[in-house]
Amino acid sequence: MVRSMPEHSLRPFFAPRSVAVVGASRTRGKAGYFLFRNLRDGGYRGRLYPVNPGQTRVLGVRAYRSLTDVPAPVDLAFLVVSAQHVLPALQECARRAVKAVTIVTAGFAEVGEEGHARQQALADVVRRSGMRAVGPNSVGLVSGPAGLMGSFVPFSNWPSGRIAIAAQTGIFTGAFADELSARSTQRVGFSRSLCLGNSIDVDEVDFLEYAARDPQTDVIAVHLESFKRARAFLSAANRIKRRKPIVVMKTGRTTEGAQAAASHSGALAAQDAVVDAALRQYGIVRAKTLDDFIGIAKALAWLPAPRGGRVGIVTLSGAMGVMAVDEMQGTGLALARFSPATVRRIARCLPEWQPVRNPADVWMALSVGVERAHSEVLGAVLDDPGVDLLLCILLPIPNADFDAVRRLFARLRRRHPTKPIVPVLVGGLVKQRWMRELEPLRLPVYADPGAAVRALEAVRFAAQQRDRLCPDPEQVNVGRVP
Amino acid sequence: MVRSMPEHSLRPFFAPRSVAVVGASRTRGKAGYFLFRNLRDGGYRGRLYPVNPGQTRVLGVRAYRSLTDVPAPVDLAFLVVSAQHVLPALQECARRAVKAVTIVTAGFAEVGEEGHARQQALADVVRRSGMRAVGPNSVGLVSGPAGLMGSFVPFSNWPSGRIAIAAQTGIFTGAFADELSARSTQRVGFSRSLCLGNSIDVDEVDFLEYAARDPQTDVIAVHLESFKRARAFLSAANRIKRRKPIVVMKTGRTTEGAQAAASHSGALAAQDAVVDAALRQYGIVRAKTLDDFIGIAKALAWLPAPRGGRVGIVTLSGAMGVMAVDEMQGTGLALARFSPATVRRIARCLPEWQPVRNPADVWMALSVGVERAHSEVLGAVLDDPGVDLLLCILLPIPNADFDAVRRLFARLRRRHPTKPIVPVLVGGLVKQRWMRELEPLRLPVYADPGAAVRALEAVRFAAQQRDRLCPDPEQVNVGRVP
Repeated sequence: MVRSMPEHSLRPFFAPRSVAVVGASRTRGKAGYFLFRNLRDGGYRGRLYPVNPGQTRVLGVRAYRSLTDVPAPVDLAFLVVSAQHVLPALQECARRAVKAVTIVTAGFAEVGEEGHARQQALADVVRRSGMRAVGPNSVGLVSGPAGLMGSFVPFSNWPSGRIAIAAQTGIFTGAFADELSARSTQRVGFSRSLCLGNSIDVDEVDFLEYAARDPQTDVIAVHLESFKRARAFLSAANRIKRRKPIVVMKTGRTTEGAQAAASHSGALAAQDAVVDAALRQYGIVRAKTLDDFIGIAKALAWLPAPRGGRVGIVTLSGAMGVMAVDEMQGTGLALARFSPATVRRIARCLPEWQPVRNPADVWMALSVGVERAHSEVLGAVLDDPGVDLLLCILLPIPNADFDAVRRLFARLRRRHPTKPIVPVLVGGLVKQRWMRELEPLRLPVYADPGAAVRALEAVRFAAQQRDRLCPDPEQVNVGRVP
Repeated sequence: MVRSMPEHSLRPFFAPRSVAVVGASRTRGKAGYFLFRNLRDGGYRGRLYPVNPGQTRVLGVRAYRSLTDVPAPVDLAFLVVSAQHVLPALQECARRAVKAVTIVTAGFAEVGEEGHARQQALADVVRRSGMRAVGPNSVGLVSGPAGLMGSFVPFSNWPSGRIAIAAQTGIFTGAFADELSARSTQRVGFSRSLCLGNSIDVDEVDFLEYAARDPQTDVIAVHLESFKRARAFLSAANRIKRRKPIVVMKTGRTTEGAQAAASHSGALAAQDAVVDAALRQYGIVRAKTLDDFIGIAKALAWLPAPRGGRVGIVTLSGAMGVMAVDEMQGTGLALARFSPATVRRIARCLPEWQPVRNPADVWMALSVGVERAHSEVLGAVLDDPGVDLLLCILLPIPNADFDAVRRLFARLRRRHPTKPIVPVLVGGLVKQRWMRELEPLRLPVYADPGAAVRALEAVRFAAQQRDRLCPDPEQVNVGRVP
């Protein structure tokens, strides 16, 4: 593993020694106000330079009339000026030898022909300069380990963790990141979060390469509405998946986005199938919904890699066991066949007339006592050498003995460190309490049997594909790649 | 509309004048204890008779040695005795001319050959007697309007409402119903909830017919793992959908259930496709997951029937707008084409260079002020005669002016009483507060663009199918019905 990465060109975005904000504003409500306030209050320990031609101070910090006036080298500059001022500001960055620029301002390629031409002019400056540039039309970026809260979207409580996330849009670079992490108690958090925007330079491939080498990152998550460089992405992911799992959420059916999608549905569905097939072929996990994207990233971050796809299900609700089995269809997961020893162990807890099945029904075992029923049935299933993953559907009760619950699951995890265990908790009001007990053991909790199965399938797929290097799509003819 | 329904044979289950519990127990932990306690404490106003040969009182209520000793007629009896005592207890019910029996005891057809024979003996008694019987292997039933909490699963806070729900299993007849309703602030609640169990007599078709005539019910929800009488169900639903919307969740890929599903996936998937096609053909909404089941029932209960499927989307997050559009593929929903007047109204709130699209981006309109942006853009889209349904994706902020929010949505609803409005709220910690403001206006709130779109599609489909009576599947040859 690479410990230091002094030379990666994206490093100044995530660990800059100094940051300038061109367009920092004291006018509440402006993007330049929120961006600068978030940076000032986020815990960043390097030098911070607000740049505003009309101010000597911005939010209590000494301000400069121009980037040229800033008295020291600038690693990272945010540009948050109006659209017509972006080009000169970028040229000034180039003259000052700024290493990394994040162009926040919108109104470029996303608004049509004229904007496209203006964006091309920015790209030309960047290419000639050797700077790296994010955006335009980027909400910004956040780097937890650097205390760098470089987003103009308000948020209060940044969830730090070991998932590096990039998205074309700003949904993971502000309040919504907070929302997502609030769905978990052992916070699902981010090491780095980057809004790519229109990607004149830095794109999803650069981010993959950076995150792969980032010692603060265990899992890489990417949300795209279109691929900038599909082949290069697959090529990089194909290598990187061997060290770090990658999950991709691809939304939008065309590069033109949802708008066009409505009128060309036939062609679009086909293209999405190509995306699906390409990701699968190169062993990259795909999430279809926002909930799954985060649920799967959580599973990849916390769970061990299983040896296979044979699932043991232990459930307090027969109906939910059926729903879990439904969801397994078409995946690489299958119901485990319990060994005779496992069947005998479970049978001891059941009424005589009750057959032992997978899913195993704890409900029928409750007559031996809640604690013993769970301990015996979960233990028997997890001990079975034919079980690779354990799904347990619990109906949490308010007055549970939480010491016993914690001890039981800690013991199970210790005894089988390579078998992923996923609890599904249904039962509203005390769920949070149960999650607080279970998630610190790195047991990712789900509220729905389907979501839990999709997370288990993701860890199985990632484990299976980890050791499988596909022919490099940049070296061989792989046919049409989206 | 039928106001009184004195003659429906299921009425004694949901509005009995007297209830006996055969097997009521004072031993905490037994099903007969919880069932009787729930009945005693649930607000039931009729006569309640615990029956237990060894007790003179159960939980403070005068008990009887046998049903024969009960001094007055019994409308409804719960049987919660051990399996070998069910048959004589049922025979006693027949002799006493009990009208309705709910057999809670398990250990019949679900446990194999011998259990099947024992169940057949019960069915014979019921058929000869003229009683109606639910179960065996039923968790019980709940009837909010009667204060009848006839379930042995503990729950604290029954959510009353206007959805009648039946399920083969007990998941909606106890704590989990509470959980589900907790996902909403304007409680998603139930008029009647019935656990069908093994259905020797009362089945999903009987329940449909009863709920259709029940003045306490607006929406009918049914969860099945297999159909008892598929043709009769489609025939009844085909008629009833004209008065009340029906949503069905069918889980399990075979009648043999999930266990068999694992080994016969090919055939099973085909059978599930038949279920899908049959429900669609007869105009019955199908929900694929538990979340959707409840989310769709909520939409059907609160929203007006739209005139078509043209959706206007107003969003603060471009990315989530795309996710919503993705979800519309393959449904009867399509993006509305805004009229020139609508485009002009929205354009007034946007920067000059920003084109007006559907989804309409409120984010770009925020410079005119948060309140005005929402009021203008939402108003313009909803006023458009080419828009049948409105999806609005909001990023709730903690310090919102809730009076203004409430006024805005109340005004929109009043102005367009026939256009469903569905808000999607993303943003964790203040979501509950926003829901408390919006859901009392009968605006069903969702946490995910996909869930909201599936709910809108359900109300569209139900409205379209309401006036479409298909040929009766019991009269014509419709081919193989599952």
